[in-house]
Amino acid sequence: MVQISERGKAMPQSPIRKLVPYAEEAKRKGRKVYHLNIGQPDLPTPEIALDAIKNIDFKVIEYSHSAGFESYRKKLAEYYHKIGVTINYTDIIITTGGSEAISFAMKTCMDPGDEIIIPEPFYANYIGFATAASLKIVPVTAHIEDGFALPPIEDFEKHITPGVKAIIICNPNNPTGYLYSKDELEKLRNIVQKHNLYLFSDEVYREFCYDGLTHYSALQLKGIDDHVVLLDSVSKRYSECGVRIGALITRNKKIIDHAIRFAQARLSPPTLGQIVGEASIDTPKEYFVQVYNEYIERRNYLVEALNKIEGVFCPMPKGAFYAMVRLPVDDADRFAQWLLEDFEYENQTVMIAPASGFYATKGRGLNEARIAYVLKKQDLEKAMKCMEVALKQYPGK
Amino acid sequence: MVQISERGKAMPQSPIRKLVPYAEEAKRKGRKVYHLNIGQPDLPTPEIALDAIKNIDFKVIEYSHSAGFESYRKKLAEYYHKIGVTINYTDIIITTGGSEAISFAMKTCMDPGDEIIIPEPFYANYIGFATAASLKIVPVTAHIEDGFALPPIEDFEKHITPGVKAIIICNPNNPTGYLYSKDELEKLRNIVQKHNLYLFSDEVYREFCYDGLTHYSALQLKGIDDHVVLLDSVSKRYSECGVRIGALITRNKKIIDHAIRFAQARLSPPTLGQIVGEASIDTPKEYFVQVYNEYIERRNYLVEALNKIEGVFCPMPKGAFYAMVRLPVDDADRFAQWLLEDFEYENQTVMIAPASGFYATKGRGLNEARIAYVLKKQDLEKAMKCMEVALKQYPGK
Repeated sequence: MVQISERGKAMPQSPIRKLVPYAEEAKRKGRKVYHLNIGQPDLPTPEIALDAIKNIDFKVIEYSHSAGFESYRKKLAEYYHKIGVTINYTDIIITTGGSEAISFAMKTCMDPGDEIIIPEPFYANYIGFATAASLKIVPVTAHIEDGFALPPIEDFEKHITPGVKAIIICNPNNPTGYLYSKDELEKLRNIVQKHNLYLFSDEVYREFCYDGLTHYSALQLKGIDDHVVLLDSVSKRYSECGVRIGALITRNKKIIDHAIRFAQARLSPPTLGQIVGEASIDTPKEYFVQVYNEYIERRNYLVEALNKIEGVFCPMPKGAFYAMVRLPVDDADRFAQWLLEDFEYENQTVMIAPASGFYATKGRGLNEARIAYVLKKQDLEKAMKCMEVALKQYPGK
Repeated sequence: MVQISERGKAMPQSPIRKLVPYAEEAKRKGRKVYHLNIGQPDLPTPEIALDAIKNIDFKVIEYSHSAGFESYRKKLAEYYHKIGVTINYTDIIITTGGSEAISFAMKTCMDPGDEIIIPEPFYANYIGFATAASLKIVPVTAHIEDGFALPPIEDFEKHITPGVKAIIICNPNNPTGYLYSKDELEKLRNIVQKHNLYLFSDEVYREFCYDGLTHYSALQLKGIDDHVVLLDSVSKRYSECGVRIGALITRNKKIIDHAIRFAQARLSPPTLGQIVGEASIDTPKEYFVQVYNEYIERRNYLVEALNKIEGVFCPMPKGAFYAMVRLPVDDADRFAQWLLEDFEYENQTVMIAPASGFYATKGRGLNEARIAYVLKKQDLEKAMKCMEVALKQYPGK
């Protein structure tokens, strides 16, 4: 018998994926399932982007340059310039989604066995990319009581050994919605500088910042140009997750020189997706105003509704479109499954993302879940009613 | 100073890439460069495929299932059925290009340090994927004198050690154009069975078989269902390289179960590319007749013209759209650079792919090059005239 690799066996299956069959079964039974578990926004892709793809007039869908179309990279450089990040287009490699940017950064900067520090809870797929690249994850825990602020510097330094080569952050954060302040980022800068680490900064939710707060990019930090790799994606910004277009951006020429070889091996990022991405840069401002207003309304409603339910605690997220919530349950994985398998309220139920998949430390986040506010408010209202009833009925407390 | 990883440093830069600046410089000087170096066909993408993308009518470009749209996988299963390969749609994972299928197969079946046998010369990017997955390449040499037939079984067995976990073949072959016979594939089957290896079969040029020969797929081999992983792509079949859509196909359920986790980590293959790929399956037969006639004419012309040049030897390729050629030169890398840097004939020159990048054994293929017949015949004629003149003038012999 041929054997699956140890690497393949170590690849995690997220707790959300395990719930999918239960959601499908619930739908087969005719039940309405409100999906609060996913990061697929329901908002429309900008028309300018859809038009660009409908109006293609070439006869052959060719490869692009391995680093992406030059015209797109130049336009992206202008976009970054406008948000206060000065880079050259040659500092950009267009990737197949933010996913590939994460993978390229890890493989270019880290060897099998190296360790990467991640504040937990974190984007669950970081585990997959780290495992695929044969890296070890070193979690530093952020706490729901602190609203998931950056853990104290001492907590980071406690974990820094010679094996640690990088820190990865997601800002604004998935799953917590936490937006790192300039002050927090400067603390990170100091750690990175002192211990000679890479800082991978995943900023795919950059445009989703609320309450008058502005986003501060890791590429705006002074003195660590060689250390910072920005990981980006158009997926959330323009609600075009399916185009699979992201970017790896760094002022460290050596990283570009070596990351491009991984890019050359896979030939080219998607041509059609790049056309959409490039056109999206000209999305009118009103689009973002609408998106902002929509998310603010949903967030405010959701957080208030959750905190009204007895025993529930949900800190106010300042960015992205997720909220982390502490639930009065024994085990959020079991609760999430129960919601789909055994519960219904007026033939409706909800699917939530249990937080266990967002923590690397075993046993953490067992009574937490991530709620994505990617549904319109009237659906959120129905979903919250379900949650309220469910938490009263749920036997495992 | 932060350090690039050993893995990043080990990523190869192909000899073709090194030539690109010289080609750009030649063009800046106003010189016409005939590109015989690339695998980007000049033939049109089927209209049915272009229309599918122009006619999209959704409002949000969403993620697909991580294994690809179910409708596309079901249609692909029918396509395979028609070519004599019986599989279920659940045996298919849609990948981001054939590239990602190679990468998923290697990572799911092999661990860092494992070895993979590849008949050389081989597709240069196999080195990149193997390096990215921390694998070692074990080349088994095929020879131009034999027309690049499968090396004798003894040559394979000489290299099989406990570290060897897989063999990868490309059929029809890039760069040689060699089409493996059923008999040769059955010999490979016996090796794979006897030594309990995986067989990764890259069949992206399946539709390009000439002289009445038919393609025999590794998935048609009996008795090694658990061993075979088919790697496929729509890039060449429908001249749509830029869509980045491929597939990993295996009847081994365990491989699917674990490869899907790598697929889930990167969320989804490109949505727009899948729309193009799915529509392409209905490409009318006449398209392939035209493509076949075009390539046959080009191939016949090219091989005859090359063999007419003094000191040149080019075996007749039976598939794909490449020919490997032995040249009367000291070093094909140097010759290729000289063509771009120092040579011109009526203000024209050619760019060829030196074969050194297709061999893992150092020093092999130094006087060989790959010629892609992806230009129309009248351009090939001009390119061959250049070659003839250049080989007379080239000082390094």
